Amino acid sequence: MPFIIEGKNPVIELLKSGHPVTKILLADGLKPGDAIPEILRLAQAKNIPVERVPRRIIDQQSTTDSNQGVVAYAAVKKYVGLDDLLAIAAEKNEPPLYVILDGIEDPQNLGSILRTAYAAGIHGVIIRGRRAAGLTAAVAKASAGAIWYMPVASVSSIADAIENLKKNNVWVIGIDHSGKDEYTKMDFKSPAAIVIGSEGKGLSELVRKRCDFLANIPMRGQINSLNASVAAALVMYEAFK
Amino acid sequence: MPFIIEGKNPVIELLKSGHPVTKILLADGLKPGDAIPEILRLAQAKNIPVERVPRRIIDQQSTTDSNQGVVAYAAVKKYVGLDDLLAIAAEKNEPPLYVILDGIEDPQNLGSILRTAYAAGIHGVIIRGRRAAGLTAAVAKASAGAIWYMPVASVSSIADAIENLKKNNVWVIGIDHSGKDEYTKMDFKSPAAIVIGSEGKGLSELVRKRCDFLANIPMRGQINSLNASVAAALVMYEAFK
Repeated sequence: MPFIIEGKNPVIELLKSGHPVTKILLADGLKPGDAIPEILRLAQAKNIPVERVPRRIIDQQSTTDSNQGVVAYAAVKKYVGLDDLLAIAAEKNEPPLYVILDGIEDPQNLGSILRTAYAAGIHGVIIRGRRAAGLTAAVAKASAGAIWYMPVASVSSIADAIENLKKNNVWVIGIDHSGKDEYTKMDFKSPAAIVIGSEGKGLSELVRKRCDFLANIPMRGQINSLNASVAAALVMYEAFK
Repeated sequence: MPFIIEGKNPVIELLKSGHPVTKILLADGLKPGDAIPEILRLAQAKNIPVERVPRRIIDQQSTTDSNQGVVAYAAVKKYVGLDDLLAIAAEKNEPPLYVILDGIEDPQNLGSILRTAYAAGIHGVIIRGRRAAGLTAAVAKASAGAIWYMPVASVSSIADAIENLKKNNVWVIGIDHSGKDEYTKMDFKSPAAIVIGSEGKGLSELVRKRCDFLANIPMRGQINSLNASVAAALVMYEAFK
């Protein structure tokens, strides 16, 4: 099944990334605008066929409400294995730095986390295969194209993945309001994985127990949590420094 | 015109905040669930009438697709003036710290910024009155209730607001990729205002020129911007430290 990417910017980001694309559909009567010539130019340079079709064909393919008359059929974004993630950091000769998402459900949040992870030089993101947000068109859009560059591993058990990383000398740091130390006190120069909990529930009990450290993000006022993608960003950038 | 707040959590956050509420509507046949008894308890404690109505009445009132059978009629969230923001920091005996949004259009981003600003102890947020995201039900939801606590000033010109703050000895720091210094090098112990640009375009030329400093957020890879709410969060938490 092809991966359908929708909207001008998401399609441009896809084309620029070099990720395989089989076909692009443009709605009839689309005004040349700013983005269309760029899409045509990028598609031509890579020998990707562009078809003009009635707008309703595009709307039928679309899973979001913002296709802007443009869809692309991309190869599915492949997940990598945990071993691949370890190899990637070794290749770059950098201490590995991963982000583990313990049940992020919202595509906006997953996309935003991929975008920030890519900007912060994270080596890979680990997500749970079931019941969490997968790699969809909405995630691609929210990631601003980072989805095409960021290695993502999908695992059946986050707790098992944590054990596996620990065996490979990666320190696992869970972000949790029960953490004694602030996230700014953590050592990110050693190999590390940052674990972010789900929007509603935070870290699951099982995952919390497996972490080597629990760190909190200090907060003022009556609200005791941040948006998951904001919490992830703060810790990733702390590590990036 | 009342401000309609939709969904279980947003209504609970509203009730807890003490912001005036005139009435709550619950859909007929709603299962007691976890949240409904809490809504009833909070409403009763504050003498707020609760009406049971057919689901379609709720859906007619609703502007989002996630009312969950619950809406509340709240008093409009009032904007404050720039002078009020200066007074708030003085009252708390803290160096003022503000966030200025130069044209944020996305309600999710505005809500997320209010949420993080509140957690980071920011004294007030300044938004542009026209063409930017206003304080809507979607913003309230994304703010996780922070909208009820965070003072927000709406101004007709961000550039004029910056001049006004500068006259009051507030240093104005624009976040922009052209900035020479990293955001971590800024002095947030003096009175300061952080300026965040719009999602697509960043800071407008006029606003960029008025800033005392421009600071960048370092990034790796092929993508040269972060989500606006993520960029705002990184700088606000840097100041919070």
